[in-house]
Amino acid sequence: MSDTTQITLARRPVGEPPDDTYEVRRVELPALVEGQLLLRVVYLSLDPYMRGRMSDAPSYAAPVGIGDVMVGGTVCVVEESRHPEWAPGDVALSYSGWQTRAISDGTGLRRLDPERAPISTALGVMGMPGFTAYAGLLEIGRPQPGETVVVAAATGPVGSAVGQIARARGARAVGIAGGPEKRQALLDDFGFDVALDHRSPDFADELAGAVPDGVDVYFENVGGEVTRQVLRHVNTFARIPVCGLVSGYNATEAPEGPDRLPGFLGLVLRRSLTVRGFIQDEFTASHGRDFVREMSGWLADGTVRYREDVVDGLESAPEAFRGLLTGRNFGKLVVRVSEDPTS
Amino acid sequence: MSDTTQITLARRPVGEPPDDTYEVRRVELPALVEGQLLLRVVYLSLDPYMRGRMSDAPSYAAPVGIGDVMVGGTVCVVEESRHPEWAPGDVALSYSGWQTRAISDGTGLRRLDPERAPISTALGVMGMPGFTAYAGLLEIGRPQPGETVVVAAATGPVGSAVGQIARARGARAVGIAGGPEKRQALLDDFGFDVALDHRSPDFADELAGAVPDGVDVYFENVGGEVTRQVLRHVNTFARIPVCGLVSGYNATEAPEGPDRLPGFLGLVLRRSLTVRGFIQDEFTASHGRDFVREMSGWLADGTVRYREDVVDGLESAPEAFRGLLTGRNFGKLVVRVSEDPTS
Repeated sequence: MSDTTQITLARRPVGEPPDDTYEVRRVELPALVEGQLLLRVVYLSLDPYMRGRMSDAPSYAAPVGIGDVMVGGTVCVVEESRHPEWAPGDVALSYSGWQTRAISDGTGLRRLDPERAPISTALGVMGMPGFTAYAGLLEIGRPQPGETVVVAAATGPVGSAVGQIARARGARAVGIAGGPEKRQALLDDFGFDVALDHRSPDFADELAGAVPDGVDVYFENVGGEVTRQVLRHVNTFARIPVCGLVSGYNATEAPEGPDRLPGFLGLVLRRSLTVRGFIQDEFTASHGRDFVREMSGWLADGTVRYREDVVDGLESAPEAFRGLLTGRNFGKLVVRVSEDPTS
Repeated sequence: MSDTTQITLARRPVGEPPDDTYEVRRVELPALVEGQLLLRVVYLSLDPYMRGRMSDAPSYAAPVGIGDVMVGGTVCVVEESRHPEWAPGDVALSYSGWQTRAISDGTGLRRLDPERAPISTALGVMGMPGFTAYAGLLEIGRPQPGETVVVAAATGPVGSAVGQIARARGARAVGIAGGPEKRQALLDDFGFDVALDHRSPDFADELAGAVPDGVDVYFENVGGEVTRQVLRHVNTFARIPVCGLVSGYNATEAPEGPDRLPGFLGLVLRRSLTVRGFIQDEFTASHGRDFVREMSGWLADGTVRYREDVVDGLESAPEAFRGLLTGRNFGKLVVRVSEDPTS
């Protein structure tokens, strides 16, 4: 008999999720029946969208139920198998959530080849965040050579891929991040043309200086004050893929006025803007293969680089998740739930 | 020697444009030289976009200069000609602005055939407003058979065409207008499937009842409270062509809070909305010919009907324009500046 330690949603948080959002429980797992396999979670991905799943506001995905295991993408190793296609030691991309082990019937698992790329990248640059950047930038943003692409949270797994893919397409990439260390990493690690620190007291002026020809694509993943500043510079026919709004995920009510919506719609009208919300899965059928092929090539030849922020132990997830929502992490945040057998 | 009476922009208005926004002046016109023609304005179009041109806020078009004649589309008859392609009595679509006569060198004139359609329709259903509806709805809104299209200011020249074109494409058209008389006209004159009065105290409930399957296309031409109500019902992947925001054109400052922009962007994200501002001229090259062909056919076979609101005399333009911005007119507003020789 094996067991799993699970982090469940105990109550729906208000604002930044405190510790009592969660409950930790240990559950005995039944013996496998024919067709099942036992997964040991190696890496758990922490992503901003999880904040939305904690809430029961209407959304594109059902909320996590009270008492249910928190959802999340995982990289797992097969510990035991009674499934014909899986053997102990195999590595799989799974959606096992915030727990240490899970029983699967194989549905939704994707086999990972540790020789091809570090297995944790299936949660980052080769996975959902990388594909979000790829599909949103290329299908909605459609950057042309010489155009200016701006992205915030630019050291994150989506933002860093957006900037590097924009450059691979011949566009100029302007990255925005919080703090001088992250700002420097945009230049040194990810090759942005210009890097800005939104905490700088001169941010508005620095942004204006960074986009002398205006902004053609603003890849929206933060919202709030950064967005307001960038909008001052959008060109006619600019495209704004809306991928996330992490600055507001902990908000408990509509911010104080004035009401900026009429002004925003006026800007959309006067500049003939395209604003398009998206979730990456709508593009999987149309762009999934191209993504794997192109991104593998870019990683191999160094066109795209990535950075991971690894925290150890499932019990670290709640604090790490709070840090993610407030910008304290640096790179793709993953929890190493158990030993990585491939590293 | 002939003369022209002109209405010029005397000062930039704050809010609803008062009479002292304008100055009236009479100007002697010089004799024609070779290549010129003298136009007598028959119809002057009044359109919401003109409010934007009175302001010097950054926009897609330069503002009218102080002391300059107010701009506007016109239908004119040629009084005299020293131009090889034009003869007295010819009728032309022009952009002569708020005046009674103008000298032209032929640039930008389009010949109108009075046999084909009443000449005033070149300012309405067969002109810029009709094309705005056609291009914005079909290219951005892309209504599919059975989908629900909602449009406000629906008795206006753009809104009424949007609803009728939507129905011609097999979609369900829900029209919103102000007051019971306009509401009834949506059903009787323009064939909307459902008509709503946004001044009704039960408007929110009536709207909910009118869109049981949600809203797939919201053709945005008013903004404000109507927009907020419609947004509650937009479906995943809904399209919102942003054509105008007339409810806010007289606004002097951002409305009181709360700030609805974060909530709006959140909706764009969660519902994968497409919000796209546009000005019809970007579609002239791609859709202009199809428009003339299709709209002529629809007018001929009764698929599309139109309504005009004709006021007499150039001196009526300032008051009529205020009425346009506050919904007092009913149908395409034109000023009959001088006698229509074709009617």
